Amino acid sequence: MRTSCDLNADLGESFGAWRMGDDDMLLAQVSSCNIACGFHAGDPLTMERTVAAARARGVAIGAHPSLPDLLGFGRREMRVSAAELRALTLYQIAALGGFTAAADVRMRHVKPHGALYGMLARDLILASAFVAAVRSFDPQLAVFGPPAGALRDASAAAGLSYVREGFADRGYQSTSALMARDQPGALLSLQDARTQGLRLVRGESITAGDGSDICVQIDTLCLHGDGPEALELAPLLRGDLDAAGITVRAPL
Amino acid sequence: MRTSCDLNADLGESFGAWRMGDDDMLLAQVSSCNIACGFHAGDPLTMERTVAAARARGVAIGAHPSLPDLLGFGRREMRVSAAELRALTLYQIAALGGFTAAADVRMRHVKPHGALYGMLARDLILASAFVAAVRSFDPQLAVFGPPAGALRDASAAAGLSYVREGFADRGYQSTSALMARDQPGALLSLQDARTQGLRLVRGESITAGDGSDICVQIDTLCLHGDGPEALELAPLLRGDLDAAGITVRAPL
Amino acid sequence: MRTSCDLNADLGESFGAWRMGDDDMLLAQVSSCNIACGFHAGDPLTMERTVAAARARGVAIGAHPSLPDLLGFGRREMRVSAAELRALTLYQIAALGGFTAAADVRMRHVKPHGALYGMLARDLILASAFVAAVRSFDPQLAVFGPPAGALRDASAAAGLSYVREGFADRGYQSTSALMARDQPGALLSLQDARTQGLRLVRGESITAGDGSDICVQIDTLCLHGDGPEALELAPLLRGDLDAAGITVRAPL
Amino acid sequence: MRTSCDLNADLGESFGAWRMGDDDMLLAQVSSCNIACGFHAGDPLTMERTVAAARARGVAIGAHPSLPDLLGFGRREMRVSAAELRALTLYQIAALGGFTAAADVRMRHVKPHGALYGMLARDLILASAFVAAVRSFDPQLAVFGPPAGALRDASAAAGLSYVREGFADRGYQSTSALMARDQPGALLSLQDARTQGLRLVRGESITAGDGSDICVQIDTLCLHGDGPEALELAPLLRGDLDAAGITVRAPL
Repeated sequence: MRTSCDLNADLGESFGAWRMGDDDMLLAQVSSCNIACGFHAGDPLTMERTVAAARARGVAIGAHPSLPDLLGFGRREMRVSAAELRALTLYQIAALGGFTAAADVRMRHVKPHGALYGMLARDLILASAFVAAVRSFDPQLAVFGPPAGALRDASAAAGLSYVREGFADRGYQSTSALMARDQPGALLSLQDARTQGLRLVRGESITAGDGSDICVQIDTLCLHGDGPEALELAPLLRGDLDAAGITVRAPL
Repeated sequence: MRTSCDLNADLGESFGAWRMGDDDMLLAQVSSCNIACGFHAGDPLTMERTVAAARARGVAIGAHPSLPDLLGFGRREMRVSAAELRALTLYQIAALGGFTAAADVRMRHVKPHGALYGMLARDLILASAFVAAVRSFDPQLAVFGPPAGALRDASAAAGLSYVREGFADRGYQSTSALMARDQPGALLSLQDARTQGLRLVRGESITAGDGSDICVQIDTLCLHGDGPEALELAPLLRGDLDAAGITVRAPL
Repeated sequence: MRTSCDLNADLGESFGAWRMGDDDMLLAQVSSCNIACGFHAGDPLTMERTVAAARARGVAIGAHPSLPDLLGFGRREMRVSAAELRALTLYQIAALGGFTAAADVRMRHVKPHGALYGMLARDLILASAFVAAVRSFDPQLAVFGPPAGALRDASAAAGLSYVREGFADRGYQSTSALMARDQPGALLSLQDARTQGLRLVRGESITAGDGSDICVQIDTLCLHGDGPEALELAPLLRGDLDAAGITVRAPL
Repeated sequence: MRTSCDLNADLGESFGAWRMGDDDMLLAQVSSCNIACGFHAGDPLTMERTVAAARARGVAIGAHPSLPDLLGFGRREMRVSAAELRALTLYQIAALGGFTAAADVRMRHVKPHGALYGMLARDLILASAFVAAVRSFDPQLAVFGPPAGALRDASAAAGLSYVREGFADRGYQSTSALMARDQPGALLSLQDARTQGLRLVRGESITAGDGSDICVQIDTLCLHGDGPEALELAPLLRGDLDAAGITVRAPL
């Protein structure tokens, strides 16, 4: 049984006058954060402030690059070539890197956002382009992504550390893939999410949507900050982990 | 009389499917280039390719940050706070820095684009914010700007190298400031531009719009790549400088 | 003393995944609404839904065009030519007009947003361009704006109805102009806003920031939906008006 | 054999400072034009000017709505819901309608742009949403699209006129579908394009990429304005049609 785990959250997803999520609350619960880089959310001032807030809390900072789609919040798939994807990934990581360097803090990881997350799990050519961009910025960066799939394979091939991510509040298929958001059972209740979160962190089996028992090996658990349930879940789950004697800390 | 000078040009101002300027031609004439960073022009793939092209030619690379205004090509003034300006400048410089670092070439300077160029010449608070962003990215970076004004003062105060820029094809006021584009005499003929360019580079006096003789001390001369006259001027002026025995090379 | 007045609110200012304001609450209080058209906020789906919600409540619909600046929420001044302003105003009004026509409801007015509101109060050339765009779309449209200034003059010159707008929660200068947001006294307390709102609607004098009594003649009072105070003020002030026997209804 | 045909071209695809295509040349050759509406190209001022230029030439005006993707010029597929597509289509058509109404000219048709064109040929749900938007703006509008597929079916179901479009310079598959741009033979030589264009217009069979003879029934032929070949083709093909006694005129 594992005795430590990373908790991560997507932060800095405000844009201009629009607010998104409760970054302060999440920063108090997590050990890693993924900061939006301006393509699905985030603007330069928000990025600077989010880096400062994460640094002040001692939360490990990662970049959260996305497809270029503010209107769709990076949630819709879009055809991009490998060359485009490499360039737009490097652009976003490097832009965030300006703020981490200015704040004298090291960037630790990169996690793809939204639709890109799913595309990179499936498509090895795109995943390799993404990983190449990460590597060209800093080969010490870890990649956060699904426990299995193209992104993990591409990261391994490039010699990058890979951090397997799980979700407390999302239903899993028996294949260990996430259920689509529009399927029944895709979003767990608060109580089920607490149970699943704790079991995932401990390395225990969980129940898939079809009732089968599956074992999903993860290194980090993602917490959300949008929606009332998510806001409630984060501190409760963190409390559960603390109570269970699990140390919450960034990878490595 | 000076025997060497920098020639610079704004490059990488295409965006997606739209082309702008003749970068290949300009790269053959200049010793420094200023690469658009995505806020007035330029996209990640264009930035990557422009860095590669400049590197291949041995042309010194600088960032060309702008106000956030694709539709206006960064040419219209827009109210920004010092904090916003610092953050959006750092964002753009750092984003370009991702591509220079990946290409293993050093970024050498930063030059503000369009309306921002004029705002920074006048406003010390904004100029100081801009310079702070440059400095926080790399204190070795030089700042390109007008021969006198707030940007020069702010750069000096921050201990950054400052490179005074002149224009061959733009008319000057007797105060050594550029004439507004809509004034008669603001744009010089090809022949007058060749004469003025050579005189500026040599440190000789030029004739202002009101007929007076002025002496504008510059370290770099800007060449343009849009418009038929500009395309003709660049190689002619470069030829004039070569014929006059002037060495064209990047500052320092 | 007046016995009827319009109440208006800016609505539809969400964008993609980002929410802004409490449109449902405001729709229950106001008789007119100004719907964002996509340049500072609003997206096509939000516009369609906001038109449907306003129609269902019987709230008169107006367009709320802005300078093109999502990142700045249309709140920062930007240099635009008269020709550009006319075109971008017509674009936005017509786009909203697609949704009102499809919902079989008439657009009743146009109110400039944010920084444009102030620019049009001062600059007769821009105000005339704006009014020309409104008129070319539909000469029956009323223009909402400050009680005096260039926008009112341009509307009168073009033969458009003009609706003078006041603010309950903003301090006024002795000239009847609004105080700048960063001045002390620019934002009134909830209690003062209730008092000022009722007095403005009744046509009674109010107290300017310098203590002088001024009389600001208005035809509509603007309510805000962002910020906790604004959310409290709207129903309270509406209750005050109802209690005072004032009929809240759209102009004409 | 047909004795008349429509020629159409995509116009107004400049954006801000960036130019695209040779609209003046194309306007001299075609009988219909499709004007970009700001989502893949076009800005309000460009739209206004393009409407004025088309009107002056007596060229029938249509809207050319796109997926929201300036950076990708609307050429990459993107997941959109039917509700979103209906709203963004109506937004764009109505925005252009502001300029046609102000110029006192009638909008005649709507043609989807780029990736959307292909998506609507395949997906009946999206095609129906698109057609519903067109119809809600004006049921007299014709829809331009591929000779067969979902867009044609949806238009027919909604009772809208449908104008079948062919391409002179693109290779066809034996199924009458266009070949993908990256396949060999997808782009015809100037001479082959002249031959194919004339045969398509006359209703004669053409040769598909696999050598088979196919018959593609069309009502309009699309001419392009970007690229040197396209610029040459347009006047040559128009000359061929004139010489063959074919009347070039807008549908209906």
